[in-house]
Amino acid sequence: MGGDHAPAEIIAGAVEASREHGVRLVLVGQAPRIRRELDRYGFMGKIPIVHADEALDMGEGALASWRKPRSSIAIACHLIKQGRASALVSAGGTAGVVATSRLRLKGQQGVMRPAIAVTLPTRPRPTILLDAGATTDVKPEGLVQYAALGTAYAQILLDLDRPSVGLLNIGAEPAKGGKLTKRAHELLAGGSHGIEFAGNVEGHDLLSGRVDVVVADGFTGNVALKTMEGTIRTAFDEVREAMSGGAAARFGALLQRRRLQDLRDRLDPDTYGGGVLLGLNGTVVIAHGASHARAITSACELAHRLAAGRIVERIREQVALTRTSRFGRRTHADRDSAETPAREPDAPEPKEPPASA
Amino acid sequence: MGGDHAPAEIIAGAVEASREHGVRLVLVGQAPRIRRELDRYGFMGKIPIVHADEALDMGEGALASWRKPRSSIAIACHLIKQGRASALVSAGGTAGVVATSRLRLKGQQGVMRPAIAVTLPTRPRPTILLDAGATTDVKPEGLVQYAALGTAYAQILLDLDRPSVGLLNIGAEPAKGGKLTKRAHELLAGGSHGIEFAGNVEGHDLLSGRVDVVVADGFTGNVALKTMEGTIRTAFDEVREAMSGGAAARFGALLQRRRLQDLRDRLDPDTYGGGVLLGLNGTVVIAHGASHARAITSACELAHRLAAGRIVERIREQVALTRTSRFGRRTHADRDSAETPAREPDAPEPKEPPASA
Repeated sequence: MGGDHAPAEIIAGAVEASREHGVRLVLVGQAPRIRRELDRYGFMGKIPIVHADEALDMGEGALASWRKPRSSIAIACHLIKQGRASALVSAGGTAGVVATSRLRLKGQQGVMRPAIAVTLPTRPRPTILLDAGATTDVKPEGLVQYAALGTAYAQILLDLDRPSVGLLNIGAEPAKGGKLTKRAHELLAGGSHGIEFAGNVEGHDLLSGRVDVVVADGFTGNVALKTMEGTIRTAFDEVREAMSGGAAARFGALLQRRRLQDLRDRLDPDTYGGGVLLGLNGTVVIAHGASHARAITSACELAHRLAAGRIVERIREQVALTRTSRFGRRTHADRDSAETPAREPDAPEPKEPPASA
Repeated sequence: MGGDHAPAEIIAGAVEASREHGVRLVLVGQAPRIRRELDRYGFMGKIPIVHADEALDMGEGALASWRKPRSSIAIACHLIKQGRASALVSAGGTAGVVATSRLRLKGQQGVMRPAIAVTLPTRPRPTILLDAGATTDVKPEGLVQYAALGTAYAQILLDLDRPSVGLLNIGAEPAKGGKLTKRAHELLAGGSHGIEFAGNVEGHDLLSGRVDVVVADGFTGNVALKTMEGTIRTAFDEVREAMSGGAAARFGALLQRRRLQDLRDRLDPDTYGGGVLLGLNGTVVIAHGASHARAITSACELAHRLAAGRIVERIREQVALTRTSRFGRRTHADRDSAETPAREPDAPEPKEPPASA
């Protein structure tokens, strides 16, 4: 029920995912409306429906998660808890989806904070950025965990054995940055965590393909992602304007329109998809609010792929490696955290409300 | 002496600034080399030279500021302290220039931390972003001061009476963000500081022209700036590639090459110039390390303009307004800081080493 074009485009995308890609789906929302849409595709009865009375509005955040226990997103979480679904896809507002899934699915054991991973349109293969805004005010140990989450995600999504991980910082040298990144660099460089740590990366490395995974706190990651999206939009608007400048330019533009359109599509956030919330007891794919059918189909395929790759188990294994190496090697770098090892595995539920991406 | 093309391009740019724009200059560096270059333009004796034995290397940071008290940048600072110069321009490494000028010029009275302001190529007029990386780990009160610094800078550079100021955050609503931005929003929204506060802005607003000044901590600002630069580079590389795709496309590209080159120039950081370090007892313009003569001429003109606009005095006035309003109105929002008013005007020198931009 979430998203600017719900439920019509959501259902169109789901039907396509089911028909063309064999993804097994359950649709959660207002049953009569869903039935009407499915009917249009001759798909009545082919995709099960679970009715939900309510839906979160796009602008609703953390509070709505408590106020609406029967929202479509809350019910979808319930299906995962019951084992009736392995993952969920929503085009609802990020804040509401994140808050509801944190509340209903809970953080998976050993993970301090969940993170939103997004896929950047780097070539030859995508770069994964996390956290794109699930959690602000994270600790250095949280960034190390994001490196583990990102490693597990890249192993499944990019089919890499040991994806390289960079720490988003303001300079290449280890001593660069603020307190958070300096300490996180120490922790990541200090031991074998099952993480292929490639050191610091900078803002211009997000699209350079230097590393497979870029780790940042949710504030910085969100600003970087939105800066990139805004810059791509501006650059293309300017190119279009430059091209429509004169008769000769217009003629040239005509010749190239299709190629440039392809390019724009590839760099457009509506095309390359939304984010994945990692670190909960279940996989949550957050499609863009503006998603049309094609984006929803991609999101369903992604959810399917992550569930098939057993992302939750893979994250558990990766995070366990992080802990082992930290308590196994008492270097200067991990002294502080090693002093309180007993609290780590049962870290308290995060208290801050999630940030909108 | 700083920069990839020093001293030849530096001196070529300075000669142009002097000849075409009437900027009064002093050249600081190795006198024999400077004389030789000036001779090539028939400018020997027309621009005074102050000899400096040493120069900072591009990679040298904070420590070099202490180790090389006779570096060209240290001597240039000395000229400002003596009143023999009003501003300095350098294409040296950002870390070294920032550290040396902080050490030699000191922070101006009432300013807690200096900030690097950069000019983004927004249309119809530029947007100013600060801090682009002078200081990491700033406090909320520091962000309020950046708003004052940015206001003074925009008044001179953009010739605006009341430039609008946005706080870089991860959502539009006041309650968005981490501890730092939430508190800074309270402070900025809470009273009249002589600042036209326009609320939160997001990453995609940096090039949208929504506000005249965007305020961020140095870590976030630096990541956003470099993300923008990297994205512009990638987008243009892709456009060029798309255009060279086929015979027809190549023909079209030929027709448009000049227009696109103009556009690329405008969006290229090497063209739109470096940053200005605000908040010290003197104006420091940091040109890009890769600067050629044209960028140095622009940097000299900018330094001249800021000195003529009495930027240091303007900042003092703006920052004083911030303090007055904070101690004058004891709202919930400014209670914490109002408890220790006596320390404010003589805030201690910052301790953290500056970050590279």
